[in-house]
Amino acid sequence: MSQFINAKDTTVLEAIDGTIRASGGELARLDGYPHIKVVVRANWDKSQVALVSGGGSGHEPAHAGFVGEGMLAAAVCGDVFASPSVDAVLAGILAVTGPAGCLLIVKNYTGDRLNFGLAAERARAFGLNVNMVIVGDDIALPHLPQPRGVAGTLFVHKIAGAIAESGASLGDVTAAAERVIAGTKSIGMSLDTCWVPGSPKENRIPEGKAELGLGIHGEPGVEQVSYGGARQAMAAVTNKLSQTMGNVPHVALLNNLGGTSELEMAILANELAGSVIGKNIKLIVGPATMMTSLDMRGFSVSTYPLAAEDHAWLTAPCGPASWPGCKSLNAVRKVEIPDGLRPIEPIPSKHPETEAFLKKCCECLIAAEADLNALDAKSGDGDTGSTLAVAARALIDASARLPLADHTQLLRAIGQELSQTMGGSSGVLMAIFFTAAGDAAASGAPMAQAYKAGLGRMQRIGGAELGDRTMVDALSPALDVLITEGVTKAALAARRGADYTARLSTAKAGRSAYVSEEQLIGHIDPGAEAVARLFECLST
Amino acid sequence: MSQFINAKDTTVLEAIDGTIRASGGELARLDGYPHIKVVVRANWDKSQVALVSGGGSGHEPAHAGFVGEGMLAAAVCGDVFASPSVDAVLAGILAVTGPAGCLLIVKNYTGDRLNFGLAAERARAFGLNVNMVIVGDDIALPHLPQPRGVAGTLFVHKIAGAIAESGASLGDVTAAAERVIAGTKSIGMSLDTCWVPGSPKENRIPEGKAELGLGIHGEPGVEQVSYGGARQAMAAVTNKLSQTMGNVPHVALLNNLGGTSELEMAILANELAGSVIGKNIKLIVGPATMMTSLDMRGFSVSTYPLAAEDHAWLTAPCGPASWPGCKSLNAVRKVEIPDGLRPIEPIPSKHPETEAFLKKCCECLIAAEADLNALDAKSGDGDTGSTLAVAARALIDASARLPLADHTQLLRAIGQELSQTMGGSSGVLMAIFFTAAGDAAASGAPMAQAYKAGLGRMQRIGGAELGDRTMVDALSPALDVLITEGVTKAALAARRGADYTARLSTAKAGRSAYVSEEQLIGHIDPGAEAVARLFECLST
Repeated sequence: MSQFINAKDTTVLEAIDGTIRASGGELARLDGYPHIKVVVRANWDKSQVALVSGGGSGHEPAHAGFVGEGMLAAAVCGDVFASPSVDAVLAGILAVTGPAGCLLIVKNYTGDRLNFGLAAERARAFGLNVNMVIVGDDIALPHLPQPRGVAGTLFVHKIAGAIAESGASLGDVTAAAERVIAGTKSIGMSLDTCWVPGSPKENRIPEGKAELGLGIHGEPGVEQVSYGGARQAMAAVTNKLSQTMGNVPHVALLNNLGGTSELEMAILANELAGSVIGKNIKLIVGPATMMTSLDMRGFSVSTYPLAAEDHAWLTAPCGPASWPGCKSLNAVRKVEIPDGLRPIEPIPSKHPETEAFLKKCCECLIAAEADLNALDAKSGDGDTGSTLAVAARALIDASARLPLADHTQLLRAIGQELSQTMGGSSGVLMAIFFTAAGDAAASGAPMAQAYKAGLGRMQRIGGAELGDRTMVDALSPALDVLITEGVTKAALAARRGADYTARLSTAKAGRSAYVSEEQLIGHIDPGAEAVARLFECLST
Repeated sequence: MSQFINAKDTTVLEAIDGTIRASGGELARLDGYPHIKVVVRANWDKSQVALVSGGGSGHEPAHAGFVGEGMLAAAVCGDVFASPSVDAVLAGILAVTGPAGCLLIVKNYTGDRLNFGLAAERARAFGLNVNMVIVGDDIALPHLPQPRGVAGTLFVHKIAGAIAESGASLGDVTAAAERVIAGTKSIGMSLDTCWVPGSPKENRIPEGKAELGLGIHGEPGVEQVSYGGARQAMAAVTNKLSQTMGNVPHVALLNNLGGTSELEMAILANELAGSVIGKNIKLIVGPATMMTSLDMRGFSVSTYPLAAEDHAWLTAPCGPASWPGCKSLNAVRKVEIPDGLRPIEPIPSKHPETEAFLKKCCECLIAAEADLNALDAKSGDGDTGSTLAVAARALIDASARLPLADHTQLLRAIGQELSQTMGGSSGVLMAIFFTAAGDAAASGAPMAQAYKAGLGRMQRIGGAELGDRTMVDALSPALDVLITEGVTKAALAARRGADYTARLSTAKAGRSAYVSEEQLIGHIDPGAEAVARLFECLST
């Protein structure tokens, strides 16, 4: 397997450019490639406190994806899993910091602490007002004095970002960031390692195992645990978190580490809501892809105690499209199934002439069973005759409960019967044919016109055109003639149409679309033959 | 490797419930599990035309993720890659359709056409006004009369949804949908197959190959092509699209098929902008995960000619968080690197006493080189002495250009020199120490207090506390004593602190945090020893 990259060295540069191009003009970058990779808000006027974050790349959409109104003013990007240089960070600070000052939000990795820290010193020597906070939300190793910074960093970006956007002072923004950092806890689980561009993929996690307590750089989790499904995975994660949370309302962030499908993430959201901490989660961010470890098939959950003042900051609209919003976590809201799923049973009525006509049609199809099966065996599974015969016998049996005296209702009732007795695509198509014909008849169309309406609807839904080697090739010309010239001429037209299908070398609709030319040529389509037989029967 | 599911049969049910729980109350579902899986807008009042879509699951966030204001009123979900039943579709129609009617948006698969088609007939028999459009945007097989419906369906949801939200009639909404369908073209490429829950993963695509022209159900692509990187991949896709587009403005949708990392998707966005069709793409949706094939590592591009009237519909705000917005596609906007990355060179000045003091310090460290290396070899790579000696020699060499007479500037200049000559973490930490000390001195702090300020900043950024077995254990007590009792007492304090590190069995910061207890005990930390030697030197 490969990756959608061009070259290892240009990976981050190209990804940043792609992000900027698709940002609708919201983002720009400093003109310092390749060493200085800094994404900034294009419309930033330095009038408020500037939030600057960043670190190694490989965590997309973090951090460039969180640059925008109400979140970051700049993201300083290193190479994949490598801290940016002091110069790059300093360039980012200088580019966005005005009189209101700047807050650096740094995840707790030595390289980031040092490079952001020295850049902050240099910026201060320019007279800039720069604060720095360090996020260490990972609880994988509970007694580690310097826990890693992972996805909980997003809470800091959002809350401090909204407060900065409101015009608060650097001191207030910094205090808010420190408050969020103190309360934020995160832990992750993964079923597979990530694949670093330009390096061989490591297959560290054996079948049936998962890693619990991950960083976001592909480093091994703290424990390798047995994997027993989504519920058990979420239980392992939330059991760790619950020990830190206390019985108070929280906001949770459910993060895709990169390679988990949306289907799985939705299941994990369901499990999170039903987990041991679910009752205390009032707000949820995600499930969404926010702080990744490249393409890692894993997830993380971050929690933060929901102070009353933070509700508004968390839910405030913001610019970055990568922020999925912060919403209430609710029970599953259910709506009653609407009435009317079971069709109204028609009122049976007698009409000897109609009953005889119907029976004649059915018997004609029953008589053709073996021939039609033989034809179908040339291009399909040889059951067209049997399918029609079964349906025809069922219709004869049902005649006592059909509304034979009301032709409009009868057509609809036949459609209903056929959809139940024929099954599969042909049953649905016949049901559509008769139901639509019934609707047309209800609107006052003469019977042959009603059948034409049914055919039109069937063709539209089934997608078969004339010449596609289906029953349409016999039925359509027959109905055209039936309207003006009667059933005998219609039978001739049906036969001509059916015979024509034997000269068609490709089928464009239905199952025989998958059959080769050699198998088709010289054989009449069994559906078209059935139509021809029916009309021939009726004309005698 | 495993998946985050619980059981095959409950996968879709649980995923829908998770989506509803995390929707902030925007979504509900019909109470018809397991057979009827229909997601509806919780606040839908049937006052406008209801858009209903759906089909098999496994395409998340489609379709439930696009239910919301300005897009769908309901999504009818089948099992993974299986069409929903007629009853399920009918239930969805009945649940959301009012006097304004309903438009079914169906992707061109036989099962979906038939089940949605028959459900539409049944709904019409209830007197409801139901139209149905069929999306066939896939150009993988250009001459196929019934192309598949893939990610371009999102254009239909968005444009028809915005028009319906504006209060347009069913006829107008249907006409708009037909117009979008007629112009939309899509094609996808993948590097790996998707993994259907409960089935073994098929590994169909060999190393170095990609599949071009995919559906969204894991079926093989139309061609298996050689894979030559992101640029060539995007070229293969856009070359196909360009043949259908003409030289007119378009909107493009860049879709993650499920398992492609955000980093890769950003690179693909960059390639799309630079591709043969890039100059005609005025608006872009994505890159984002919208219409997936579970976890497929692939992408698709959809294009639609940008009629003037559609610009507003595409960019109109809408409810569903899964819609990433539609933005202008731009050139990479660049901002000049700010001035000041290169520190101001200090003005050299003479001060014989200071020069002598500095030289004495440096020579003391040079003299300790071998001893410090030997100590470092116990817990590290044995180069602490050499690192310090190299820096000391460089500082002696630099003395002619240092601002020796201005102690504030001198501290900053030393910081700058050390960050360039020492390298690595220790260089950055020393630079932080001296820069912060210089800042404090500039604010009028006495020299010993200035050093304390430098130490504080270095500790904060480096994360080392007293007792963590670092140079801090010698430097911190020495500076405390220096302020009040002078250098001789300071040297004794430094020595006590350094000796104390030999009794510390765990290091909590710096590189020796990764070394075992047995390797540490009995050995003084080389950084602390260097500090003690320096003070001892100065006190004689």
